Amino acid sequence: MFAQALDAAQRAITGFLAEELARLGPDRVAEGMRYATNGGKRLRGFLVLESAGLFDVPPAQALFAAGAVECLHAYSLVHDDLPCMDDDDLRRGQPTVHVKWDEATAVLVGDALQTFAFELLADARAGDAEQRVALIGSLARASGAQGMVLGQAQDIAAETAALPLTLEQITELQGNKTGRLIEWPAEAGAILGRADPAPLRRYARAIGLAFQIADDILDVTGDAATAGKALQKDAAAGKATFVSLLGLDGAKARAADLVAEAEAALAPYGEKAHNLAALARYIIDRDR
Amino acid sequence: MFAQALDAAQRAITGFLAEELARLGPDRVAEGMRYATNGGKRLRGFLVLESAGLFDVPPAQALFAAGAVECLHAYSLVHDDLPCMDDDDLRRGQPTVHVKWDEATAVLVGDALQTFAFELLADARAGDAEQRVALIGSLARASGAQGMVLGQAQDIAAETAALPLTLEQITELQGNKTGRLIEWPAEAGAILGRADPAPLRRYARAIGLAFQIADDILDVTGDAATAGKALQKDAAAGKATFVSLLGLDGAKARAADLVAEAEAALAPYGEKAHNLAALARYIIDRDR
Repeated sequence: MFAQALDAAQRAITGFLAEELARLGPDRVAEGMRYATNGGKRLRGFLVLESAGLFDVPPAQALFAAGAVECLHAYSLVHDDLPCMDDDDLRRGQPTVHVKWDEATAVLVGDALQTFAFELLADARAGDAEQRVALIGSLARASGAQGMVLGQAQDIAAETAALPLTLEQITELQGNKTGRLIEWPAEAGAILGRADPAPLRRYARAIGLAFQIADDILDVTGDAATAGKALQKDAAAGKATFVSLLGLDGAKARAADLVAEAEAALAPYGEKAHNLAALARYIIDRDR
Repeated sequence: MFAQALDAAQRAITGFLAEELARLGPDRVAEGMRYATNGGKRLRGFLVLESAGLFDVPPAQALFAAGAVECLHAYSLVHDDLPCMDDDDLRRGQPTVHVKWDEATAVLVGDALQTFAFELLADARAGDAEQRVALIGSLARASGAQGMVLGQAQDIAAETAALPLTLEQITELQGNKTGRLIEWPAEAGAILGRADPAPLRRYARAIGLAFQIADDILDVTGDAATAGKALQKDAAAGKATFVSLLGLDGAKARAADLVAEAEAALAPYGEKAHNLAALARYIIDRDR
């Protein structure tokens, strides 16, 4: 069932990335890239594999898009953890890249992981040329100056803003910072399956927001050792979060509504989408 | 002639980037992206336009690859100038991005410029899908962990190495750090022209190395105000350079040999390549 499917996807993605990154050689940046992409929940990659599976795309093909989004995500974490950004020492229970090596290495590892994401999508095994260029264009738009990077900049700006963010502002910020890179894998499945992306996009928008609300809940109620990262940073920093704006119960209720929305969006795919439905529920129940 | 052609290309590339980056909106990262891509010699973009011109590729199409390589180059400069990297305050005669704004903004501006380079290449106006995916794959290989980023890491490692680099090591380092992103634009012209890239690659390899030797000569003999950046940093840091290894006259002679090699590689294109030939000579005669 879901737990086994997620576990199998995690192994497949980890194996794929290990193999693709092995050819980069023994130098420090390549070492850092392997380090930074090892571990993690692989939820974005799982989303690619499951979305592509709805349309019977061969997993060996979908792994390129799954690996690419995990590299893109890993790059964003390496840079986000830098002293000049969030200044985090711990990630997935391990020292962050700039702690294990140094800041220059972390900058370069993040840079090269972003490049590698696009290199994977340009690989001839990732799809036909039209599909590959559609994957690349959509990933660039989702992760660049009008997507994830914009969200990170909005997050930094919020820390020094005179007023705490409104619910509308924080929804927009999180939609950019986290949501776009959760929507992309679902869209990638539709591109690979030459299918209408609209239902998967609706599903992904709902779970993207649910994911961030769950993160805010976890920041308040979670255990740092289990989560593998520092918690309660937002409250300490006086940042507006979904919990501070909606209350803990309100945030939980909103997340549950979003999961119901996500499940409803999967109706066209019937039983084939049972892992995607389970993923929506997992996202708000996880402890890390 | 050459000066007018370079000037026209600079204007065309600057206009193209201004228009493409205008749609990103008014926020700080977009502002930083426009700032970091404004100015510069545009030699890489010029190389795309001239190489594509050999095969009568419409300039309006080639501008996407020209703009992309300038964005990629600009990202590398913004990150290279960071305090944890080269720690430069001045670039093209202006404050560097982390000086004008802050380090977090510089990290994000560089990240988003890299993304934008791939977004431009994925644009439908950049070529057919096969061409676009070939441009993207080759740019990723040239600029990532086995190309430019590897060269940057090798450069950093050289600073703390027990022994100064040998001529062979510095040639490899500079080939990665600078050469690959000078070879790519020439290759891009051949991809857009559906032509054999071999002669252009030979040409670009020669001018890439000549470019770096000229940079080392400029670091010793140049004027900081004209160059728009700090000079004589290498000698002060005790780094091996082509000048320290070959002597000033030896470096000049090697650069001149490479220019002759580059010109010879252009023979198949006849008179159409006169601007590329002039560029090879310009590269070792420039004062900034």
